[in-house]
Amino acid sequence: MTNLKEKFAQTRSQTQALCAPLKIEDYSIQPIIDVSPPKWHLAHSTWFFEQFILQPHQPNYKVYNTDFAYLFNSYYNNVGTRVLRPNRGLMTRPTVEEVYAYRNYVTAAMLDFLDFEFPSELIPVLELGINHEEQHQELLAYDIKYILGNQPFFPSYETKAKLSVENFDLEYINIAEGVYNIGHRSDTFCFDNELGAHKVYLNTCSISNKLVTNAEYIEFIEAGGYTNFNYWHAEGWDFIQNNKLTAPLYWHKVNGNWHYYDQTGLVPVNKDLPVMHVSYFEAFAFAEWKGMRLPTEFEWEVASNHFRWGQLWEWTSSAYQPYPGFTKKEGAIGEYNGKFMVNQQVLRGASISTAPNHSRNTYRNFFSTQLRWLFSGIRLAQ
Amino acid sequence: MTNLKEKFAQTRSQTQALCAPLKIEDYSIQPIIDVSPPKWHLAHSTWFFEQFILQPHQPNYKVYNTDFAYLFNSYYNNVGTRVLRPNRGLMTRPTVEEVYAYRNYVTAAMLDFLDFEFPSELIPVLELGINHEEQHQELLAYDIKYILGNQPFFPSYETKAKLSVENFDLEYINIAEGVYNIGHRSDTFCFDNELGAHKVYLNTCSISNKLVTNAEYIEFIEAGGYTNFNYWHAEGWDFIQNNKLTAPLYWHKVNGNWHYYDQTGLVPVNKDLPVMHVSYFEAFAFAEWKGMRLPTEFEWEVASNHFRWGQLWEWTSSAYQPYPGFTKKEGAIGEYNGKFMVNQQVLRGASISTAPNHSRNTYRNFFSTQLRWLFSGIRLAQ
Amino acid sequence: MTNLKEKFAQTRSQTQALCAPLKIEDYSIQPIIDVSPPKWHLAHSTWFFEQFILQPHQPNYKVYNTDFAYLFNSYYNNVGTRVLRPNRGLMTRPTVEEVYAYRNYVTAAMLDFLDFEFPSELIPVLELGINHEEQHQELLAYDIKYILGNQPFFPSYETKAKLSVENFDLEYINIAEGVYNIGHRSDTFCFDNELGAHKVYLNTCSISNKLVTNAEYIEFIEAGGYTNFNYWHAEGWDFIQNNKLTAPLYWHKVNGNWHYYDQTGLVPVNKDLPVMHVSYFEAFAFAEWKGMRLPTEFEWEVASNHFRWGQLWEWTSSAYQPYPGFTKKEGAIGEYNGKFMVNQQVLRGASISTAPNHSRNTYRNFFSTQLRWLFSGIRLAQ
Amino acid sequence: MTNLKEKFAQTRSQTQALCAPLKIEDYSIQPIIDVSPPKWHLAHSTWFFEQFILQPHQPNYKVYNTDFAYLFNSYYNNVGTRVLRPNRGLMTRPTVEEVYAYRNYVTAAMLDFLDFEFPSELIPVLELGINHEEQHQELLAYDIKYILGNQPFFPSYETKAKLSVENFDLEYINIAEGVYNIGHRSDTFCFDNELGAHKVYLNTCSISNKLVTNAEYIEFIEAGGYTNFNYWHAEGWDFIQNNKLTAPLYWHKVNGNWHYYDQTGLVPVNKDLPVMHVSYFEAFAFAEWKGMRLPTEFEWEVASNHFRWGQLWEWTSSAYQPYPGFTKKEGAIGEYNGKFMVNQQVLRGASISTAPNHSRNTYRNFFSTQLRWLFSGIRLAQ
Repeated sequence: MTNLKEKFAQTRSQTQALCAPLKIEDYSIQPIIDVSPPKWHLAHSTWFFEQFILQPHQPNYKVYNTDFAYLFNSYYNNVGTRVLRPNRGLMTRPTVEEVYAYRNYVTAAMLDFLDFEFPSELIPVLELGINHEEQHQELLAYDIKYILGNQPFFPSYETKAKLSVENFDLEYINIAEGVYNIGHRSDTFCFDNELGAHKVYLNTCSISNKLVTNAEYIEFIEAGGYTNFNYWHAEGWDFIQNNKLTAPLYWHKVNGNWHYYDQTGLVPVNKDLPVMHVSYFEAFAFAEWKGMRLPTEFEWEVASNHFRWGQLWEWTSSAYQPYPGFTKKEGAIGEYNGKFMVNQQVLRGASISTAPNHSRNTYRNFFSTQLRWLFSGIRLAQ
Repeated sequence: MTNLKEKFAQTRSQTQALCAPLKIEDYSIQPIIDVSPPKWHLAHSTWFFEQFILQPHQPNYKVYNTDFAYLFNSYYNNVGTRVLRPNRGLMTRPTVEEVYAYRNYVTAAMLDFLDFEFPSELIPVLELGINHEEQHQELLAYDIKYILGNQPFFPSYETKAKLSVENFDLEYINIAEGVYNIGHRSDTFCFDNELGAHKVYLNTCSISNKLVTNAEYIEFIEAGGYTNFNYWHAEGWDFIQNNKLTAPLYWHKVNGNWHYYDQTGLVPVNKDLPVMHVSYFEAFAFAEWKGMRLPTEFEWEVASNHFRWGQLWEWTSSAYQPYPGFTKKEGAIGEYNGKFMVNQQVLRGASISTAPNHSRNTYRNFFSTQLRWLFSGIRLAQ
Repeated sequence: MTNLKEKFAQTRSQTQALCAPLKIEDYSIQPIIDVSPPKWHLAHSTWFFEQFILQPHQPNYKVYNTDFAYLFNSYYNNVGTRVLRPNRGLMTRPTVEEVYAYRNYVTAAMLDFLDFEFPSELIPVLELGINHEEQHQELLAYDIKYILGNQPFFPSYETKAKLSVENFDLEYINIAEGVYNIGHRSDTFCFDNELGAHKVYLNTCSISNKLVTNAEYIEFIEAGGYTNFNYWHAEGWDFIQNNKLTAPLYWHKVNGNWHYYDQTGLVPVNKDLPVMHVSYFEAFAFAEWKGMRLPTEFEWEVASNHFRWGQLWEWTSSAYQPYPGFTKKEGAIGEYNGKFMVNQQVLRGASISTAPNHSRNTYRNFFSTQLRWLFSGIRLAQ
Repeated sequence: MTNLKEKFAQTRSQTQALCAPLKIEDYSIQPIIDVSPPKWHLAHSTWFFEQFILQPHQPNYKVYNTDFAYLFNSYYNNVGTRVLRPNRGLMTRPTVEEVYAYRNYVTAAMLDFLDFEFPSELIPVLELGINHEEQHQELLAYDIKYILGNQPFFPSYETKAKLSVENFDLEYINIAEGVYNIGHRSDTFCFDNELGAHKVYLNTCSISNKLVTNAEYIEFIEAGGYTNFNYWHAEGWDFIQNNKLTAPLYWHKVNGNWHYYDQTGLVPVNKDLPVMHVSYFEAFAFAEWKGMRLPTEFEWEVASNHFRWGQLWEWTSSAYQPYPGFTKKEGAIGEYNGKFMVNQQVLRGASISTAPNHSRNTYRNFFSTQLRWLFSGIRLAQ
């Protein structure tokens, strides 16, 4: 219990640490539908503990503000009406100060509850709440970068989450044909979409031990990668045409040289670092151009013990589908994953902004194929 | 000169007084394209003095920040590129604090300039700048109301700009057929669209000495005003259908009774007050239902000495067109009015949020026919 | 009566003559919302006689097909539901053959009715029906040109409606300041929007006796007319930017020379002919560039006896507003004009595709400011 | 060779037989982007033989009309520019008659070529061309139904392709856990996406031997299937909300009873027939409501020898992804399948409108998850 309490407290304060460098003005905007205002993340991750732990299970708990459930529910249709996602950026009230007061109130109530009579059957929900907040920490990192990276003067943001160069030789890891086990097997925490451990049959393949670098990606751009439809899915080609894309997100050509916003400001692209902020469409096109392909999520999981991972989420060629035997939990908690299992692509690994205990090689992250604001990268297979 | 200096100082501080009740968060959002963030108004009205007075004419003036021209230019294509209107609400930087610093810097520089060697040929530009800022004060009033009136909990905003009941008997003022003079004739300040004094020929008509009240408007609603297309322009009918409108802006039916947001909170509609926040489409439909019509802007101007006006801008049946002999000034200043003279309707009068010296019966305000967030009302003619 | 019957018969056959060169396939499409399928015009102008004359007033008349009222009602909300305008081009049934059968049935029934007991109180409705069909003949001319002019190979269409060169010297006709009479005064047919003859006061002005030619318009293009925002309304500038317009409708640059579709095919622009297919925005911008302006509709009407007109509808600077004393008729007929009196601009004159008896100098045509498929031209004033 | 020639001739005439009941007007419209005009199918399937066989390989062949390549190329970016899909319905020229002339010309030239010196290395392209035209026959069936089913009066269309009742008892076919072979193995024709035969590991499952019926689907509707978000993917729920869907495509409630357009007209739903015209979203929601699931495409393929299939394409829970070892062919032919392998769902089986030789249990059909105009149905697994 002490460990969980500490973990809880640490998670709560880590979320706030991420927001510490922000100005009040940065907290409330929603520049695109995928990016939520930081204020909203602070409140929503708080609401989760109030809604699923304190309110139903702590008899003395007094709800902070009954209207907040309406404001800060994200997508749980089972828990009543909610602010539609496109309108999150129009809420100037409650203010940032009020949201921090709400956080403090709920954090204190949770710590009290954890000190005394916390029922052991709630531990899974607590763990889910912590992991849920950790997921929002990562989304916060994406959203803060997007908000600041689109300000006219590229303000700087202090963070320890920095990419590093992969200083080792390129190798291809071979996987032998055969039947392999897939999925989460231990009794530690995992999300429902990792459960249903099962066997898959893999063909021979080999996977790179390194991520694709900016240097390689610039080569792709300069070879006409964004102007030759043969490398692209039909839908990807339409997407880059309609949005006039010619490089990863945050890249700008300044006086003929590629620069990007890397949270210190607008700086020249570091060619040795892994390429970041590419969509699935771009990852696929790059692989086609190389005459290679992306690994499936199963190949990735099987090979993952043989290479370093964790700097960037890695696009796989696998669509996000339920594992055999996947079942949705009853009620709101059941809405967590299952309802997104269509028209999304799986990413495996972790990123520099993933909470450390959140990293495991069975973790199934997923995003729509056109998104680029996540911390995504490319690993090739053949 | 002293008078103008005082007027300048008073205008600058009045703009800031309007924003005093706001929270930092309220300053930066743009909930709909027509509503600009308060922060933007503060900066844009400042930029005007820097751009057209200090920078070209005060030799010692040091521009505060060369990038601000890009950020805070509104629509003057002649003065370089500008932030597109739909993106104003995504600028979290410069912060509110930085914008106030910019204001103070420019205000101080202007006051210095006014103290000493202010060239008399700049007085017209100074007057335009003051009137321009007064116009933005009124837009600020509209925009602040819109931002707060769309918060889930209807926060209160302190203001002295309040409607009052017209406690006098209804009469119709008759205008005799004949030739009348129209337009600004004295040598006091006016906008270019009021110049070109000229004659018009009016037919006999009579105009109400009172504005339409909420009680009368509720009668219209209850008589099926919003469900009978015969009262509406084809375009107005489409507009209320597509937007599912059934009442003026800010009106909500709570437990069967009409309420509205009046800046103190969500309160029952005061039936004796003039109806406010109607579009031209609604004003026209109301008049049709009454078997009457809206006055033309010329009828209004001729009759205006015979009734009280100034609580709300009054929709007229006149499209916004240039007066005979209207000419655009050269360069950016010439963009002020002429380029909007199409597909807009003229409003006459003034509102509770109009700067006092800004009220004159030749003033030609104009807005698109579907807009409702302005402080607009209805006066009938026949 | 004989004259009206002949006029009716002639109108009906003229509509069909316009369609004679079409292929069956050309009759059913609606390439943009403003363009109706020719089949629809054929049926709608027929439905008018059935709906407003035969069905209510001819006791023995048997409605051809009760469903046709639903299909071929254009915008008369008072006469029940109707096919929404954007869906007109999806109706493949009834077929063209069936629509002609419907036309013949109604024409025959009308001729019978006109032979015998046609009640004199219906003559105004009959005249309206004939004028209504003549209006649709003109729209048919626009729509057929649009349909064929957007086919990949520019098919030819035989028509006698051709522009001719204005072979006379340019002069400016002066109008003296003073009070003038405006509006339809005789007891011949006119539309309701021309009634309400009244006085207006005009300032001195002068109007060109010639339309602007293609040569002059090419000069405007080559002088950067489409790239300098100073000539344009703000809304017009946005419109040409968003639609990437650089020339009138149907113009294409082929090997560096301007060509247009003129119903014979894609041919070099004839520089001596009047320029055609410009929007109000373009007409206004052209005038600004010339340092002149468009006439008001009243100036046009007063001056019209002094110049030749009738080749193209001429954009005026007047918004489409009701005349003093304008009243809508009760019921569906009242929907004819009044409900469009907002956000439209008046055109005066007539075009090569206007029915001869349809031309009079009090006629008030009107279209939205961005439309270009009508047969519109430019006459300058100053 | 004789067989192939006969097959070719039979395919060409079968396409035309499908169009025989149409009126000329039905050939040219494109009511939604997914539905192509029948005229376009007739021409496009012809263009394929001209483009890939006659023009490059038959030395004496004279291209019918060089512009047709531009008009009737569908999506082969490698073969030059093409008419954008949304504009296909605006081409009234070439006329239907001209398109049939083009068909006859190319058919005759192909038959000549097949009589004499047809090079054996072209047989794969010929087979692809025939299979390609067979695919378009099926799309024609969908598109014709859509065009006619959206006419106001539901015209009848003669066809032998009719659903029949599955008159046998419901059973569940069990599949044992283990490794299975998947993919096309013989040397008969198949598409490139079926190649790459490989092993997969399946868990125990059981699959229904019957398709879901209209009676069962009505039960789902009446149990609130379309109003309870718990059964739906988040994207599916948004889709049915935005489009106000409450039943399969072509269903209308008439006097309280479900009717549908079944190509004879608007008739009461036959409850014993398999349900048809559901999207993947609807198939998934139905299965969720039943507490079951859709089979994967591999389960389906393995079980398919144990049940009757071929009335409707059956949605599987598998996203459309390349098989291991899938490689795109060089050039235009390589654009056939690979570029669609994202955000699509696999359907297995065949429909009443599938060409008989086109049916095989390795065939991988695919469509976007929201589409309903295809001949799709539901088979459950658990």
